[in-house]
Amino acid sequence: MKTYGKLDWAFSAGRIPFRSTGKEPDFVSHDKIAILNTSEEAAEIELFIFYEEEQPSEVYEIEVKPKRLRKVRFNDLIDPVAMRLERNYSCYIRSNVPVVVQFSRLDSGSKETAHMGSMAFPAEP
Amino acid sequence: MKTYGKLDWAFSAGRIPFRSTGKEPDFVSHDKIAILNTSEEAAEIELFIFYEEEQPSEVYEIEVKPKRLRKVRFNDLIDPVAMRLERNYSCYIRSNVPVVVQFSRLDSGSKETAHMGSMAFPAEP
Amino acid sequence: MKTYGKLDWAFSAGRIPFRSTGKEPDFVSHDKIAILNTSEEAAEIELFIFYEEEQPSEVYEIEVKPKRLRKVRFNDLIDPVAMRLERNYSCYIRSNVPVVVQFSRLDSGSKETAHMGSMAFPAEP
Amino acid sequence: MKTYGKLDWAFSAGRIPFRSTGKEPDFVSHDKIAILNTSEEAAEIELFIFYEEEQPSEVYEIEVKPKRLRKVRFNDLIDPVAMRLERNYSCYIRSNVPVVVQFSRLDSGSKETAHMGSMAFPAEP
Repeated sequence: MKTYGKLDWAFSAGRIPFRSTGKEPDFVSHDKIAILNTSEEAAEIELFIFYEEEQPSEVYEIEVKPKRLRKVRFNDLIDPVAMRLERNYSCYIRSNVPVVVQFSRLDSGSKETAHMGSMAFPAEP
Repeated sequence: MKTYGKLDWAFSAGRIPFRSTGKEPDFVSHDKIAILNTSEEAAEIELFIFYEEEQPSEVYEIEVKPKRLRKVRFNDLIDPVAMRLERNYSCYIRSNVPVVVQFSRLDSGSKETAHMGSMAFPAEP
Repeated sequence: MKTYGKLDWAFSAGRIPFRSTGKEPDFVSHDKIAILNTSEEAAEIELFIFYEEEQPSEVYEIEVKPKRLRKVRFNDLIDPVAMRLERNYSCYIRSNVPVVVQFSRLDSGSKETAHMGSMAFPAEP
Repeated sequence: MKTYGKLDWAFSAGRIPFRSTGKEPDFVSHDKIAILNTSEEAAEIELFIFYEEEQPSEVYEIEVKPKRLRKVRFNDLIDPVAMRLERNYSCYIRSNVPVVVQFSRLDSGSKETAHMGSMAFPAEP
């Protein structure tokens, strides 16, 4: 199978909700990305986080094994610095091999909102 | 009408929910793809499934008739092996003729979440 | 302002729900497209509908005025033939001038589901 | 880091809801865009608004600082003229430097609908 995906991805409307009423771990409020690496090599991925009123943070580094999926919860990004809750952020994602990235959000903290945006993209060879 | 769509599609954030409280068959929790084949030929489609901690599964083969739509529920993929519930997966979709693919999810198992992500893509000739 | 959008669009997971408990007209279950024509000319648009087990229907023709938005509810497509409810369909959209198309769905018929998928696409000159 | 995104974006299915029952400011009904500027320069952005039955409005001008995110609520667009509620609109977004744009909607005015469509796009260099 040929390697598949893109080297660069981004989303701009990130926000990790503070309140949460769901059951752990599935229904806890989150921002998440799912990264698919179809290649024979480990994907070395850098996450660049941007904010409204501050300098961009240090870069987060993530590895995704060959021919594997990896889910990353933004709540779990703590090295080099924990991401703060209830703050708007954007994320630019750069990989050394083509990957497929999908972003989803679940907000279980408000009775008014139980939503998930989920995105997939057509791949180009 | 010219043939329309792309040969390659993917989504990375698949997961078939276990619990379900909806009425059959519309509101049963599912992951689904809708495949449109606008061509005069049958579309021979391969679904490659990837996981977090396991080797990719065998390939699932699907046919979509000429000038027809076909919906595929991932719950129904049982040959060569049934897909397991409550496990994260990604899917790479390859076709021999251009097709249009849309992914949707419904989770009716939790009162907190009744969501559907639905995607469409601009087609290029 | 330069003309903006694409000539071809598609979505594959169409379905007009039967049940509806919402208030007219905003919360009635629907499948809808919003078409933006940024050009100085009227956009002459053809909608090709595809099904699972039947021949594609006759073509629906829609006009969008220059520099205007038009929303089209699939429930309202009755010429040459009314679209049937509760039947899966796909739609291929072809325009004579570049347009921007966004698809949305609202299902107010089930207490379990109040969802909307909404999509936008980056435009290329 | 290289500059990242696109100069042109659009969505066609805009609508600012009138009713609102949420808590300020997070759960008030809105249409919003999140704009990420990864470049070293300020992004000078023009928003062109289109309607169903009227001439396009005057252009709204927005600046996004270098290496920053900015969220824009359409309710807050009042110069040169306030956007009206409960009216369908489309938006074409043009920037002088590449940006990443994501559109989201929250409608908290109806008990039947608590939804958000959220979109991200693969970036191309």
